[in-house]
Amino acid sequence: MHNMTQQMRSCIKECLACYEMCLGTAMTHCLEAGGRHTEPAHFRLMMACAEICRTSAHFMLLASPHHKHTCKECAEICAECAKDCDRIGDMKECADACRRCAESCTKMAA
Amino acid sequence: MHNMTQQMRSCIKECLACYEMCLGTAMTHCLEAGGRHTEPAHFRLMMACAEICRTSAHFMLLASPHHKHTCKECAEICAECAKDCDRIGDMKECADACRRCAESCTKMAA
Amino acid sequence: MHNMTQQMRSCIKECLACYEMCLGTAMTHCLEAGGRHTEPAHFRLMMACAEICRTSAHFMLLASPHHKHTCKECAEICAECAKDCDRIGDMKECADACRRCAESCTKMAA
Amino acid sequence: MHNMTQQMRSCIKECLACYEMCLGTAMTHCLEAGGRHTEPAHFRLMMACAEICRTSAHFMLLASPHHKHTCKECAEICAECAKDCDRIGDMKECADACRRCAESCTKMAA
Repeated sequence: MHNMTQQMRSCIKECLACYEMCLGTAMTHCLEAGGRHTEPAHFRLMMACAEICRTSAHFMLLASPHHKHTCKECAEICAECAKDCDRIGDMKECADACRRCAESCTKMAA
Repeated sequence: MHNMTQQMRSCIKECLACYEMCLGTAMTHCLEAGGRHTEPAHFRLMMACAEICRTSAHFMLLASPHHKHTCKECAEICAECAKDCDRIGDMKECADACRRCAESCTKMAA
Repeated sequence: MHNMTQQMRSCIKECLACYEMCLGTAMTHCLEAGGRHTEPAHFRLMMACAEICRTSAHFMLLASPHHKHTCKECAEICAECAKDCDRIGDMKECADACRRCAESCTKMAA
Repeated sequence: MHNMTQQMRSCIKECLACYEMCLGTAMTHCLEAGGRHTEPAHFRLMMACAEICRTSAHFMLLASPHHKHTCKECAEICAECAKDCDRIGDMKECADACRRCAESCTKMAA
């Protein structure tokens, strides 16, 4: 992975950390708590956030110039997911991972 | 998968067909032919096209409203991949799958 | 995708059809119905089935000899998912897709 | 991601690190170096290793009991990929990531 900027390496790490957090939290905490945690709109957003994070990391690892577009979409979905985690409550750790990833992806998309 | 429009079902099929074609062609035809077929820019575009097609299908199956954005990006990458397959030559079947997917994703993104 | 047997082409189709069915059904029908449909064990099995189907298709498209092992695991998870769909009820279409994929993957794994 | 053992957290990290290394190295170093680095058998194994690592991490995050089987397969493919990286040469960093992941997955599969 020669010639990769430090900024891109860091963004891949944030994307994979947010993928882990969103998928892991949805499939354990949310699924087991039920109630508002399995509201379709919230659960779907968690799964969409996990998937776009996985995809954005993949595009950076492919060294595809289109990573700018996947990172832009990733920043939007992560920001939306962070807000929805705040609304649902009891999801602070997940919201924090989403915000860190949104910030890193916003820089990559610029 | 109740309540899914016929247009969305059709777009999922085109995305998965293009994913199959791009990944399968890159990993057999291109890799075995070598030469211009493994030029980094071409091979990378084939892999990026396979990945965005897989992701766009996933977003439609998640029933996420963000599928419009992944489909828009998918249409762009597929159109670019089709042109590059024409440039490389001996890739007509792949170029055709990319064009069909680009057309279908363009409609979904509208 | 030259030199791919008809049996492998058919197995890729069944895997992608089962991926579509399991992910699409979980994220719309199951999530919206709630109750026994979002029991963690059932929902998790649906998501695991979608993922192994996606992965087995990917291994066949990569032309990796390890596809035999992913197909073996896919056949096991699909068979288990079909039974669980029967237990939950109101999931016949999904159970049928799982059984077709299990049958196809069992042949590929041999 | 409550109730996840330290051993599983550690294995997810190794899987994602090996996914990053194999995909990133294949798509930059191998693709740009060409020659033996794009031999179909080697390149295909790198891509298969990246995919099974991504899938094994996913199964652990799903909290699926089938993660034992994906981790067993992951350990086998990673061990094979490490050996092949040694054979090709100039791939030490990648071989090391594969060996660390194989070791961690072997424990999870037990």
